[in-house]
Amino acid sequence: MRPYEELIVDIPNYPKPGVVFKDLTPAFADADAFAAMVDDLAAHFADRGITKVVGAEARGFIVGAAVALRLGAGFVPCRKPGKLPRTVLRESYALEYGTDVLEIHADALTSDDVVLIVDDLVATGGTTTAMVRLVRASGARLAGLGFVMELAFLNPRAAIAAETDAEVFSLVAVE
Amino acid sequence: MRPYEELIVDIPNYPKPGVVFKDLTPAFADADAFAAMVDDLAAHFADRGITKVVGAEARGFIVGAAVALRLGAGFVPCRKPGKLPRTVLRESYALEYGTDVLEIHADALTSDDVVLIVDDLVATGGTTTAMVRLVRASGARLAGLGFVMELAFLNPRAAIAAETDAEVFSLVAVE
Repeated sequence: MRPYEELIVDIPNYPKPGVVFKDLTPAFADADAFAAMVDDLAAHFADRGITKVVGAEARGFIVGAAVALRLGAGFVPCRKPGKLPRTVLRESYALEYGTDVLEIHADALTSDDVVLIVDDLVATGGTTTAMVRLVRASGARLAGLGFVMELAFLNPRAAIAAETDAEVFSLVAVE
Repeated sequence: MRPYEELIVDIPNYPKPGVVFKDLTPAFADADAFAAMVDDLAAHFADRGITKVVGAEARGFIVGAAVALRLGAGFVPCRKPGKLPRTVLRESYALEYGTDVLEIHADALTSDDVVLIVDDLVATGGTTTAMVRLVRASGARLAGLGFVMELAFLNPRAAIAAETDAEVFSLVAVE
């Protein structure tokens, strides 16, 4: 077992009854576990020529920025509406009830960029597929998607495969 | 001039008339600039025995997590209310109109921890002083505060000095 696995805490009935929230903050707070998750994600994608890591507000910034540093890449944030001060591209995505929106600076990626999308956790894949569409709209090439934890029983890989052929890699899968 | 300095973009009249917003995202997106800012902050605090870096939602996660990785420390997020799933400590802080609240998991820091607070930018110091109080309430020792950019004309050091004697270090100061 890798050092981060045993530090991920199940929170039953959070944020609502019947849902088991996966709390990764104890794994971020442990120096060895945090370095191991970042190293394991970065090592998997080390030979892909990644120029930019893209991560979504807010927890995606934690793992994404650290993986970017380890890969020698830049970090590009996807944010909720109104948080980025210059011209943006925007994509909406479905929530259980209604939709939400993610934005990226329109000049943050170019056709020369090779992109890795990183997030701490992928569940239904809604946020992730919005990020895939933002990367595509920017003209950059998406080389892969890396997650610390994948809620495989929610089948995010089907949602992602509908948008991109890029490789999906998760450190921990919950079947 | 360090590689990140020239990449920080002034956005006049954002988010409101009369305010000049400092957009650090181009410096995050540039691999060399991002690594340089992280290295410069980490190098300054390298000999302090830092065990945890504390950063605030959301931009503070980007630089904070990367500095934690470089220092071989863990990363502990401070979040807006309702985002952390377990028992929290909370502190309110003044905004121009009204107040806001930051939370930290109650068990995220212990009296054995030596803490570095990291943020991309310090302005009036409201968010920062709330983080200082959260670290103090946790029983950990605050060893320093590191920022990429300090809006020195807003005098955040006076606000911080009212809360802690820990060293404040900024890579770029705007007088």
